[in-house]
Amino acid sequence: MRLTRLGPRGEEHPAVLADDGRLLDASGVTHDFDGPFLASGGVERLRAALREDRLPELHRPADTRVGAPVARPGKIVCIGLNYRDHAAETGAAVPERPVVFLKDPGTVVGPCDEVLVPRGSTRTDWEVELGVVIGSRARYLDSPEQAHALIAGYAVSHDVSEREFQLERSSQWDLGKSCETFNPLGPWLVTPDEVGDPQALGMRLSVNGRVRQDGHTSDMVFDVAHLIWYLSQYMVLEPGDLLNTGTPAGVALGLPDAPYLRAGDTVELGIEGLGDQRQTLVQA
Amino acid sequence: MRLTRLGPRGEEHPAVLADDGRLLDASGVTHDFDGPFLASGGVERLRAALREDRLPELHRPADTRVGAPVARPGKIVCIGLNYRDHAAETGAAVPERPVVFLKDPGTVVGPCDEVLVPRGSTRTDWEVELGVVIGSRARYLDSPEQAHALIAGYAVSHDVSEREFQLERSSQWDLGKSCETFNPLGPWLVTPDEVGDPQALGMRLSVNGRVRQDGHTSDMVFDVAHLIWYLSQYMVLEPGDLLNTGTPAGVALGLPDAPYLRAGDTVELGIEGLGDQRQTLVQA
Repeated sequence: MRLTRLGPRGEEHPAVLADDGRLLDASGVTHDFDGPFLASGGVERLRAALREDRLPELHRPADTRVGAPVARPGKIVCIGLNYRDHAAETGAAVPERPVVFLKDPGTVVGPCDEVLVPRGSTRTDWEVELGVVIGSRARYLDSPEQAHALIAGYAVSHDVSEREFQLERSSQWDLGKSCETFNPLGPWLVTPDEVGDPQALGMRLSVNGRVRQDGHTSDMVFDVAHLIWYLSQYMVLEPGDLLNTGTPAGVALGLPDAPYLRAGDTVELGIEGLGDQRQTLVQA
Repeated sequence: MRLTRLGPRGEEHPAVLADDGRLLDASGVTHDFDGPFLASGGVERLRAALREDRLPELHRPADTRVGAPVARPGKIVCIGLNYRDHAAETGAAVPERPVVFLKDPGTVVGPCDEVLVPRGSTRTDWEVELGVVIGSRARYLDSPEQAHALIAGYAVSHDVSEREFQLERSSQWDLGKSCETFNPLGPWLVTPDEVGDPQALGMRLSVNGRVRQDGHTSDMVFDVAHLIWYLSQYMVLEPGDLLNTGTPAGVALGLPDAPYLRAGDTVELGIEGLGDQRQTLVQA
């Protein structure tokens, strides 16, 4: 099943994609796709309504904005250096345990919204990532195997980063990860049954038409189930929380000519089966 | 004005303290003290209702739980090493610019709730901090002076930290700051007019009756207004966000006998004019 949210920012309307390609109105099942919806078995209610053909078609103009497929997360947990080739390009060792940091949940925007180059930024960078949305509470899991049942779904997540803010203006990375609009998400939240193996997905990103990242989730150092199990030993993951699982090689930081993003640039990114994003960079 | 929230976790009832010491029911003005309340001029509506004697007395048993004085923040931004004596005791240099990291907003609990020692923890530590709750959006402020008008109020904030998780299990501190129950907040949100100068407050913390921290907000490296201005150059601060402004010397990490917290320990902390907290440590 594919969930999305359509409409102006802050007024998104929940919708689901039918097998025949029509968008169906999910507002009879829930007012929004958010933590309480996920925590209360909302996905199964939605699935039943879809199966029983109870959802009316949603008629919206073709240029309707696509929002993030879930409402503002309670938190965004990010994993650093989780692809071997990306660790190498940044000059870092492959980590022995996951490198964990947080990102302001207010950075989430729609998959094709403008991304702002922060004032004073000269090193705004891209990172295509597999986003995992938590569906049920994860706390001290006994094993990675338990993690699978707690996943609501997957989405393309763009972990935009400002490298000078991240690496030079603080010993802690969060400062360069939390700038306004720095987490385009979507277009779809795709449920696990439809994704299949999350470690078997191609992912790619191009800037102004030039391919910059061409990776595969099989190259993760720590896989999705391991990450959720690991994180649950340190913090409580709640329904609606977003996990950004790291980016493969090819970011500007690792390229010899350091082609950081500038206002006017266009970034296109996508993950196999999860859809595509396209953002234009605009000066903040 | 002093705001608080009373009742079981997740079902707190908003209340305000009258000059005569009675607790008044604020639920006729708002269903909760949260970001939307602050963003919509709620504090001024509450002040008017209080002045016009429109708030009924709230009758609750004396042992009613006190919750955090604001609902779950959108984010918690923390400042590291922001007191000269604390930087020295941890062996770190006084930073040239604020050290910024984030903490899971789900860690917020009431001021006298149990604090959990995480499983596998041997280095759970205390940190009394001046908490600042944002009242209006802060984005690219021109100067620190603009920050004052954007503050909803102040509260005692306990930035509980696990030092092994923070310093040894990840290069990024968030992992050791985001454990369950690691941010007792309250008992009051005290509005700026009642606090006066936020850089003129004594703060103290004791463990099992022994004073461990005895500091003063005048010792901050970067003051509250500077921090809000600085952060607004990198991220957007929204109404209801919490800013933890750093801790003075005296944490277990800096003591020769490293007296980290164990289940059964009691921590008491307070800040001049903002009230007191008391927590018992319990094994997770």
